[in-house]
Amino acid sequence: MEKATAVANPNIAFVKYWGKTDEELNLPANPSLSMNLAALTTVTTVEFRRDLPADLVTVDDRPLAGPALARVLAHLNRIRALAGIDHKAWVASRNDFPAGTGLASSASAFAALSLAATRAAGLWLDESALSRLARRGSGSACRSVPAGFCLWEGEDDETSYARQVAPAEHWNLTDVVAIVSREHKPVGSHDGHGLAPGSPFYAARLAAVPGWLADVGQGIRQRDLGLLGLAAEADALAMHGVMLTSLPPLLYWEGGTLAVLKAVLDWRREGLDVYFTMDAGPNVHCLCLAATAAEVEGRLRRLGVPEVVVSGPGQGVRLVDHYLF
Amino acid sequence: MEKATAVANPNIAFVKYWGKTDEELNLPANPSLSMNLAALTTVTTVEFRRDLPADLVTVDDRPLAGPALARVLAHLNRIRALAGIDHKAWVASRNDFPAGTGLASSASAFAALSLAATRAAGLWLDESALSRLARRGSGSACRSVPAGFCLWEGEDDETSYARQVAPAEHWNLTDVVAIVSREHKPVGSHDGHGLAPGSPFYAARLAAVPGWLADVGQGIRQRDLGLLGLAAEADALAMHGVMLTSLPPLLYWEGGTLAVLKAVLDWRREGLDVYFTMDAGPNVHCLCLAATAAEVEGRLRRLGVPEVVVSGPGQGVRLVDHYLF
Repeated sequence: MEKATAVANPNIAFVKYWGKTDEELNLPANPSLSMNLAALTTVTTVEFRRDLPADLVTVDDRPLAGPALARVLAHLNRIRALAGIDHKAWVASRNDFPAGTGLASSASAFAALSLAATRAAGLWLDESALSRLARRGSGSACRSVPAGFCLWEGEDDETSYARQVAPAEHWNLTDVVAIVSREHKPVGSHDGHGLAPGSPFYAARLAAVPGWLADVGQGIRQRDLGLLGLAAEADALAMHGVMLTSLPPLLYWEGGTLAVLKAVLDWRREGLDVYFTMDAGPNVHCLCLAATAAEVEGRLRRLGVPEVVVSGPGQGVRLVDHYLF
Repeated sequence: MEKATAVANPNIAFVKYWGKTDEELNLPANPSLSMNLAALTTVTTVEFRRDLPADLVTVDDRPLAGPALARVLAHLNRIRALAGIDHKAWVASRNDFPAGTGLASSASAFAALSLAATRAAGLWLDESALSRLARRGSGSACRSVPAGFCLWEGEDDETSYARQVAPAEHWNLTDVVAIVSREHKPVGSHDGHGLAPGSPFYAARLAAVPGWLADVGQGIRQRDLGLLGLAAEADALAMHGVMLTSLPPLLYWEGGTLAVLKAVLDWRREGLDVYFTMDAGPNVHCLCLAATAAEVEGRLRRLGVPEVVVSGPGQGVRLVDHYLF
């Protein structure tokens, strides 16, 4: 059988996905809209081999274990079932960005794994089928399959996948990520999703999502940062409002988080065109145009943010012709 | 005319008031339930004098000015209208706690002013009339008029005032206040109330309030800290969830706020019986029984909290026979 290597970027959602209607299928309670992040990549090589006694998975040269390994094995089993094979797999994956910093490495990881493993198993999936498959591994991974700006919507397993709404070249929107903490979040996104319906704000956020989705979609089409940015901020704060009113409260923020959020609001009052969004973690994604990114990065560093990543829109998951083993 | 001095305690609400149905009358969008704080007092002396050319108001020996003075003069005008007099007033007020630290000094201030000024004007108001009057000066001031634990409910100007649900002696509930910041909040409560209906969570919080109110009421009746504490936490987080999703977002928290919130949740997981609530500011009120207060205070100080105030249930507003001038 073949060996295959795929490269994928993580993505940042401007309208988030928080809460699921189907835990097993990773069907989200609301549509989401994201941009792939060109500056960050996961590279994954997969080979199915008859001579392997067991699946072997390494991430950044360390063998994977525990629940993280179980998630990958479950995904490999899905692909083996699709291909009608029972070979064990050798999987090596490498990230060029710090893992565990809330940069959505599971999105790029499961997008790259889905493409590399299906190719290695002799399958050719089209983009929508690949996005559906990636979704089963990690919900947001489906948005890292198409290139550029992606909308994830759909009702059931058949229809729930991400589609491109604009290519990466459409707009020089830039994400300046303030990495305020490298600590691993105390409650993972998976458990967080399960707590969401317990918040008194859960339904209210879902009811507000279509409005934000419309604004973000129009913001991308018209390259209107203000329209996209205000909706992205409102949605991110609403998601964190749902989190903090879950039982028990999910407090993903750190002191540095608050400092950056307040700074971005202050900078905008001063006239700098920058907006924030956040994932399920303490880091703050500052959204601006490419021309403003250096200014935003400099201000974040002067604020004392220990690490800053600057990224424009990225491509979709793709095959490359080199291998990690 | 007489000179009169009144003493009042600020109060901490376990179910908050956030949003108004009538801006001019300070009619709240939801009922609230609070405890007066014995450890903190405002003392206010008032005298109406024919020989004064203008109202003279000092707080902590400094003349009041600007919007704060305008609010006091409007309140004096209400009392003059009630008493049918037009004398100018000499008002001196003193707090034995740091002002501007989010300790609800406007509640104790307008409760003390209402009693001292009505007595000085020759009026005798009963408790409900005094609570209604104090409400006009500052909404939460109406809850500092009765003693102990107070419920503020009612629909209109006639019926909207605070009533005692339990006297101070009923329960040794203790508020250990972590003063994490002395900075003045960037947006005052008054303007914050006006932003509340713009939050997508405004209606959802109001819909959840009756449940929290029932739990807090039962918690007080049965002296059940867990019942009261969990409801108070949920309501406080919901109020801050409404604040942070207002447009613009109201971010009252500081880094120290997050540190205390997370610590309280951790301590409870370890078995310490302590809960938090917050007002419209960065400070955290830690609720526990009197026997646990020293332990909570010690832990807050070891956490680096610069100032801690410990208070049991306080009395209502009362006259005293000494004068500030």
